[in-house]
Amino acid sequence: LQTRLPAVGYTVFSLMSALASEHGAVNLGQGFPDFPCEPALLDHVDAAMRAGHNQYPMMTGVPALRDAIAAKIAALYGAQYNPASEITVTAGATQALTTAILCCVHPGDEVIVIEPAYDSYLPAITLAGGVPVPVAMELGEQGYTVPWDQVAAAVTPRTRLIVINTPHNPTGAILRAPDLHALGGIVRGSDILILSDEVYEHMVYDGVRHESVCRYPELAERSFVVSSFGKTYHVTGWKIGYVAAPASLMAEFRKVHQYNVFSVNTPMQHGLATYMADPAPYRDLPAFYQRKRDLFRDGLKGSRFTLLPADGTYFQCVKYEAISPILESDFAQWLTTEIKVAAIPVSAFYSQGRESGIVRFCFAKKDETLRLALERLARL
Amino acid sequence: LQTRLPAVGYTVFSLMSALASEHGAVNLGQGFPDFPCEPALLDHVDAAMRAGHNQYPMMTGVPALRDAIAAKIAALYGAQYNPASEITVTAGATQALTTAILCCVHPGDEVIVIEPAYDSYLPAITLAGGVPVPVAMELGEQGYTVPWDQVAAAVTPRTRLIVINTPHNPTGAILRAPDLHALGGIVRGSDILILSDEVYEHMVYDGVRHESVCRYPELAERSFVVSSFGKTYHVTGWKIGYVAAPASLMAEFRKVHQYNVFSVNTPMQHGLATYMADPAPYRDLPAFYQRKRDLFRDGLKGSRFTLLPADGTYFQCVKYEAISPILESDFAQWLTTEIKVAAIPVSAFYSQGRESGIVRFCFAKKDETLRLALERLARL
Ligand SMILES: CSCCC(=O)C(=O)O
Ligand SMILES: CSCCC(=O)C(=O)O
Repeated sequence: LQTRLPAVGYTVFSLMSALASEHGAVNLGQGFPDFPCEPALLDHVDAAMRAGHNQYPMMTGVPALRDAIAAKIAALYGAQYNPASEITVTAGATQALTTAILCCVHPGDEVIVIEPAYDSYLPAITLAGGVPVPVAMELGEQGYTVPWDQVAAAVTPRTRLIVINTPHNPTGAILRAPDLHALGGIVRGSDILILSDEVYEHMVYDGVRHESVCRYPELAERSFVVSSFGKTYHVTGWKIGYVAAPASLMAEFRKVHQYNVFSVNTPMQHGLATYMADPAPYRDLPAFYQRKRDLFRDGLKGSRFTLLPADGTYFQCVKYEAISPILESDFAQWLTTEIKVAAIPVSAFYSQGRESGIVRFCFAKKDETLRLALERLARL
Repeated sequence: LQTRLPAVGYTVFSLMSALASEHGAVNLGQGFPDFPCEPALLDHVDAAMRAGHNQYPMMTGVPALRDAIAAKIAALYGAQYNPASEITVTAGATQALTTAILCCVHPGDEVIVIEPAYDSYLPAITLAGGVPVPVAMELGEQGYTVPWDQVAAAVTPRTRLIVINTPHNPTGAILRAPDLHALGGIVRGSDILILSDEVYEHMVYDGVRHESVCRYPELAERSFVVSSFGKTYHVTGWKIGYVAAPASLMAEFRKVHQYNVFSVNTPMQHGLATYMADPAPYRDLPAFYQRKRDLFRDGLKGSRFTLLPADGTYFQCVKYEAISPILESDFAQWLTTEIKVAAIPVSAFYSQGRESGIVRFCFAKKDETLRLALERLARL
């Protein structure tokens, strides 16, 4: 059977989570919290189910949730999106990303992807018949940065879309104002679109603000901006996210969305809409995760790992060259099966499997989970 | 902006539901129940959330739910599917259908579609770069039937997939054993795949059994079989369905699935798994809906509508030629805005908008809703 994605295997996240549970390893691999969400959120979903909100919602999303999303974007980033025509609720951020790509990438179109890149971007581009054009981030004293001159050099008349991701998975890097200005300079006057994966928007540390593309009108006017309730509210299994985009782009997104999933879980949408009335949960998130980041970093300070900067996301990348010279995937496997702490090899985020001797840990875990992992890692 | 689906508008279901609510019409258009599901199902979901089942499930689905699905298929159709490698839980049946098409249809491949056809098939084929090859059902004394000789004549060396749907939306027709044998004869010795949309599998009336392709090994070995918990358990807004297919096909399906939605709502999957332990809800469904069908048909018997057979699904098609000679979409609009009963024009299920003077009513409604609609329709 000749299929459309013959070369891909199962995602590294599925593989490492399976390996972790098989070997009783502390799972710092796949990015999800091991602590519960707030019970109030469950109460709201339960109330919605009991109130009978169990049939098809509007294809675009439950109106109250779209209103709450638009209000949040306005409050945080000062950008106005019309909830009727510019916000769509999706079955998780991955579905939003893939749908956006399927909607605007034609066979032969080039899509610039900054690597390391979340692993769904490339297969989605391939499914659309597009041609991925990877540009590698540079790793220097300040951590990972995007070489915008190389992005500019990668643009051709066939460039349809540039995919960015900030805060950045797996590196934990964040884009700053000069990055967004550089991107603006690259796309100005072109018809290149932007797909901005901002699922970690509420996880930026040290008092720095998140530079959403929503803040930059000349970018926002050509951007699909994607976020995730799973990441923000500690419910990755609910698979609810959203896309914000100008009405003309959103109209096209919805044409594909309606034939991909049609619509998204009704009671969960109602529950989230009620929950969003209180901004505290996402406003408190930077402090909440910064403490966990610092606990984890402090615990690794005497170790033989070299800590990379972690300005955003709930991931910490480390260099392990002092411990072993083996390939990243071998090291991550060995960590999981022998040391009993699962990690993700950063090489899995490169189309060509580039090796930098770096693995990624997820610190969205209970303090006791992080301490147990640190104890085990201290043996190295 | 040149997109991948420039020609499509919003689905007829979204449009008619919006029109119905705007005009205070009884909504017999879009197919969803207006009565609640069993409270036990909500209890199970709530229990799953409280037990902490809120993070990413396995990409393929919660194991207990895949086990329950395989057990159901074995019990009802005598077919063995390995839950580990041959069942995948999806974000609704639409996502299953679109993912199956994206996974195996290459640009230029032909896909035979029986019309009238559920409206997502064609856009999904177009997204994949495939070429839809419609074959129209024939309408005779026995209602709608599939002209298998024309299906056979439509096969070419480029035929990759045949999409079938039984029980059939919108016509309410069901395929019978001779239909499946005819299909078997057409695909035998070829590498043509089958996508079988069986979301109304538990809604077959008058003591007739559902002829799932699962019952026919020579079909099942090349088929993706799709079903929907939303239809079966009266929770269309939960957007959970599944696909069953032989391991070799399923492996390819999952490659696309994992980059489309990655995985599906965790607590709902657990709740459904628990609920499925009791077969009564789906075993009782034919009797439950047959009574509603008969109530609705009886109510229309003295009317100027001509009733078409309704052997399966929760839809009743009617001819309105005695009432008006106008186009189906105009008639459906007029019914909605003037008579205050929403219906779906069957022309919306044809790629070329064929007119037969037929509209579709959904009878998955409370008895009082059906009675109110019948009262209004009786004025005609
Ligand atoms: C969808 S599974 C992957 C979760 C995640 O975002 C990550 O671990 O990078
Ligand atoms: C996904 S909305 C359409 C529901 C349905 O199956 C129908 O009305 O035909």
